[in-house]
Amino acid sequence: MIVDCHGHYTTAPAPHDAFRQAQIAALKDPSAAPKELPRIGDDQIRESLEGAQLKLQKTRGTDVTIFSPRASAMAHHVGSEETSKVWSRLCNDLIARVCGLYPENFVGVCQLPQSPGVPPSHSAAELERCVTELGFIGCNLNPDPSGGYWTSPPLTDRHWYPLYEKMVELDVPAMVHVSSSCNPNFHATGAHYINADTTAFMQFIEGDLFKDFPTLRFIIPHGGGAVPYHWGRYRGLADMLKRPPLSEHVMKNVFFDTCVYHKPGIELLLKVIPVENILFGSEMVGAVRGIDPETGHYFDDTKRYFDALELSAATRAQIFEGNARRVYPRIGAHLDRIEESA
Amino acid sequence: MIVDCHGHYTTAPAPHDAFRQAQIAALKDPSAAPKELPRIGDDQIRESLEGAQLKLQKTRGTDVTIFSPRASAMAHHVGSEETSKVWSRLCNDLIARVCGLYPENFVGVCQLPQSPGVPPSHSAAELERCVTELGFIGCNLNPDPSGGYWTSPPLTDRHWYPLYEKMVELDVPAMVHVSSSCNPNFHATGAHYINADTTAFMQFIEGDLFKDFPTLRFIIPHGGGAVPYHWGRYRGLADMLKRPPLSEHVMKNVFFDTCVYHKPGIELLLKVIPVENILFGSEMVGAVRGIDPETGHYFDDTKRYFDALELSAATRAQIFEGNARRVYPRIGAHLDRIEESA
Repeated sequence: MIVDCHGHYTTAPAPHDAFRQAQIAALKDPSAAPKELPRIGDDQIRESLEGAQLKLQKTRGTDVTIFSPRASAMAHHVGSEETSKVWSRLCNDLIARVCGLYPENFVGVCQLPQSPGVPPSHSAAELERCVTELGFIGCNLNPDPSGGYWTSPPLTDRHWYPLYEKMVELDVPAMVHVSSSCNPNFHATGAHYINADTTAFMQFIEGDLFKDFPTLRFIIPHGGGAVPYHWGRYRGLADMLKRPPLSEHVMKNVFFDTCVYHKPGIELLLKVIPVENILFGSEMVGAVRGIDPETGHYFDDTKRYFDALELSAATRAQIFEGNARRVYPRIGAHLDRIEESA
Repeated sequence: MIVDCHGHYTTAPAPHDAFRQAQIAALKDPSAAPKELPRIGDDQIRESLEGAQLKLQKTRGTDVTIFSPRASAMAHHVGSEETSKVWSRLCNDLIARVCGLYPENFVGVCQLPQSPGVPPSHSAAELERCVTELGFIGCNLNPDPSGGYWTSPPLTDRHWYPLYEKMVELDVPAMVHVSSSCNPNFHATGAHYINADTTAFMQFIEGDLFKDFPTLRFIIPHGGGAVPYHWGRYRGLADMLKRPPLSEHVMKNVFFDTCVYHKPGIELLLKVIPVENILFGSEMVGAVRGIDPETGHYFDDTKRYFDALELSAATRAQIFEGNARRVYPRIGAHLDRIEESA
């Protein structure tokens, strides 16, 4: 069983995006407000996936994708708390329909309603709804709802604790995932995403979050940002800052996906990061959609990089499935059901 | 000859730092203003270096360090344009004294006076003074004088062009180097530095700066931030954004140092980045000062990682000296003089 822990619904049907456009337009001109919720037929959903994520699952040989709303479209910096609440609920409901139509291919992770300056406790209700009513197994948490100006406290601040309490209660992890950037300095997928990954990891080193929440778990996507490449720097900084070794202080609670789009990067990741901290992911269909002229294959076909490596069956199983079961305990029931029906 | 392209004067004598403390205190209480420039004897300067940078040059086997003021202390976000002007001048004059005392060991690179909202044209005079009067060979350019809030335009914006014109006129490169962060989200050396490196590279991909300035050169420190680890992502993004291949579009003008504090990181850097774009650097005495318990050696003894690699003499010469001569043309006279006197 191969679980891809990082997929976004980047191909949602047009009425979904049209609703969002109208919602944004209404911030300036209330008459532009969407008159009703988008009407999307099951066929439209099937069509949006059959030629994209489902096709790629088949051709690449992966089984189940942990699936969440398009990250760049969360845009928590747009509009008010209410804007974000309505949009998040709509996005999550659409993911639930995807999972209902293809229960063997997708498991849901939710977008949280967040807004700059709004307490994270306000995100807890939607997380609970998604987990208990929609069967989701985790959430995406945006450490910077301002969209590139970083006006919230660090993730280790008590500011975030009410949400963490709900995560622990529900036993679901969060992927640390920013959205689009409204700061012209940061290209979303080329700078803001990677910077946020790096930033979150360093915050976890500086703080003592996992003393307060020993079972709280985060996935840092995009291969952990810059962290594995600078693993010596982070080990050294932990030492300089008189923090415990990373293995105790951070790595019991923090996991990296494998969204690194070339083989040397994947090799480095596997060389320096313990196997138990690595979850297979591809981010498909996502950030980088083209074909690598150097290989003739899609950049984001990350499974190919693993296929080309000599790894034991146990290591493969851990990265492809075992770690996902451990980090997202609620995926267990889904995977068991799929295995039984196979 | 082994040139270390990245060293900061992190061990400056106490009166230098005391002046800065008084300068900062005076922002709130004018009576705290420093009464005079700091008095620092040559012996104090010698003492500050003999047990640190000079000792490490000897023990590690490097020859010349391209030396600049302590990056974290630039703190361009503190005080006014005048604050930054006075402090930069003082820091640069101290570097000039170091280079005067040890002309075989150090070559100067200047800190620029920058402030949030102040046009970069105002930095040009100090750059010119340092190059033409003090014999410096480059500058450190802070892409975020706000200290972690990223309020300036991207480096490819015309905002920066007056400074670039001066750099081209003087034929000196800039190291893209932020300073300390006043944003609690970003640890300086663990997040802000690395994020800025990554951000700058992506800005260069998005923009067309080197069409306007074909001879402008930047060094992105800390091994290029996250870029080499995500080299596939950046090649893919350039392709998606319909930019020319990176080799043409960016890599004729952008260079990475080797401040990566473990061997697997250095190996990755050498595997994916062309040799002509890599300049040896250590950042010593700097960001990470401890000893790696896994190796028993200093994290920032980056030369050791090279010594352990099988590299041709030509590759070594290029990374250790040749590229520095090409990127910092004004270093040529210094190196020739040192070689002759040897």
